[in-house]
Amino acid sequence: MKFQPRNPDFAARLASSFQRQGFMGFIGASLGEVRAGFCEMILPYRDELSQQHGFFHGGLIGTLADNVCAGAAFTLMAADSSILTVEYKLNLLAPGDGERLVARGEVIRPGRVLSVAKGEVFAVKEGRSVLCATALATLMALSAAPGGGAPG
Amino acid sequence: MKFQPRNPDFAARLASSFQRQGFMGFIGASLGEVRAGFCEMILPYRDELSQQHGFFHGGLIGTLADNVCAGAAFTLMAADSSILTVEYKLNLLAPGDGERLVARGEVIRPGRVLSVAKGEVFAVKEGRSVLCATALATLMALSAAPGGGAPG
Amino acid sequence: MKFQPRNPDFAARLASSFQRQGFMGFIGASLGEVRAGFCEMILPYRDELSQQHGFFHGGLIGTLADNVCAGAAFTLMAADSSILTVEYKLNLLAPGDGERLVARGEVIRPGRVLSVAKGEVFAVKEGRSVLCATALATLMALSAAPGGGAPG
Amino acid sequence: MKFQPRNPDFAARLASSFQRQGFMGFIGASLGEVRAGFCEMILPYRDELSQQHGFFHGGLIGTLADNVCAGAAFTLMAADSSILTVEYKLNLLAPGDGERLVARGEVIRPGRVLSVAKGEVFAVKEGRSVLCATALATLMALSAAPGGGAPG
Repeated sequence: MKFQPRNPDFAARLASSFQRQGFMGFIGASLGEVRAGFCEMILPYRDELSQQHGFFHGGLIGTLADNVCAGAAFTLMAADSSILTVEYKLNLLAPGDGERLVARGEVIRPGRVLSVAKGEVFAVKEGRSVLCATALATLMALSAAPGGGAPG
Repeated sequence: MKFQPRNPDFAARLASSFQRQGFMGFIGASLGEVRAGFCEMILPYRDELSQQHGFFHGGLIGTLADNVCAGAAFTLMAADSSILTVEYKLNLLAPGDGERLVARGEVIRPGRVLSVAKGEVFAVKEGRSVLCATALATLMALSAAPGGGAPG
Repeated sequence: MKFQPRNPDFAARLASSFQRQGFMGFIGASLGEVRAGFCEMILPYRDELSQQHGFFHGGLIGTLADNVCAGAAFTLMAADSSILTVEYKLNLLAPGDGERLVARGEVIRPGRVLSVAKGEVFAVKEGRSVLCATALATLMALSAAPGGGAPG
Repeated sequence: MKFQPRNPDFAARLASSFQRQGFMGFIGASLGEVRAGFCEMILPYRDELSQQHGFFHGGLIGTLADNVCAGAAFTLMAADSSILTVEYKLNLLAPGDGERLVARGEVIRPGRVLSVAKGEVFAVKEGRSVLCATALATLMALSAAPGGGAPG
């Protein structure tokens, strides 16, 4: 889908929001490609990110899926609004076995208040990419007005 | 609901599985109460776990919700099987604003292969507990036979 | 949970909205108990409602689950707004084997714009009630202003 | 994706299963295109299928989404197994406003026991097709062995 961003500066705004998420820095995630309605994130493996079998922990797969969906929706928001994940659903399809996770979010239906996005998370191992999760998320734009912070 | 565990040693087995998850140690999560069909986890706040507004990152809320559902289902599994999250759906209800998150998972429908559990995540702040997310998850028991590791 | 309805006349309004749903009449569903934040519907069995094994068709279980969640949220809305299901997730737990389905929806988190509700569908057979599905839904209030009709 | 069906006769088997669903006949739905890993269904409008604004009732949108996902997964199953929807999640994107609904299900990840499929439902009005819902579903193959009928 081709989208018309409300805020021409969306990529810088997303990068700045990403940088203020302490947790994304803590795990070592970085932003990849960003376009209107699209957002990619990358997470290199290290032992601290493992589950009991030595693969990426499912919590990180969910974290990335959620975050790229929110990022994708954020690119289409007005310059003064923030974004909130209302809900998401994630199907885990394969173990997160690889040197890094690459997650991609894409807006399916943009909206002034609510947007719907899908997310995909791939485990990349020796150059081969395996789809390890697919997600469907609902995101909400919050205006800068006081009182924002949760759906309501 | 009252459950009859297949493996009387389920609590020790769950604790051991939890300890082998590098990521849970990395974020500082600990196991709380464990009963047949029930599992609790606790995560104290620190700056490394924050999103852009200084609250717990949503990825951690999802991580805990998923993990307590899997833990709850795991308590009812046979001694030689492992557990896999097939999918979950999470609704975020309030910001993760507090000194710690407390997550509780409970089996709704136990099964030999598939189980369904619900998860709730609370943010505790100055002794007050606020429900910040609710989840519904499908878990799968994998026998110790080779080939396990993903739904199939 | 105890809720304070915005519109004291919520039960009559819900009944009227229910009656205007041609499909609910077509399948023979009726409204059961209605309270602030709660809604029940009943669907007696007939052959036209079956799937291939002679049980209630899953589509009807989903229809009821969705509808009681929307109904429960509707009871808490302002008198001039309408309700829209943004999304729901349904776990099927047992076949819809019985003389009737009884579905109950309950608001978990009320909101001015978005509400979250859970739904349960029971199959009743010879006086015994079996939980056959559980759902989690996000509902949206639409003001009477023109342009309503879909999330956005 | 390109799939190798286990049962070369899958299309006839799906058609026969579809015909035994009393509810699908009752609402007037028909099977459209069927391929390995893919299934389409069509539902013409009539007043009995409406919600309160005269559009297709959301319950029917969910019914079709669920059913085409199950149908798509069914095409890849062994000849003696039946299919069960474990769960699905549906996002409603636009009103079901049109002369007919067209729903398409596609397997994302096939599996011996569990499969994941996505479903899309379009409302067709005066030759124009609008995506009105998107779904993600988990399906389970049940062998002909006694005891089937619910996940477990």
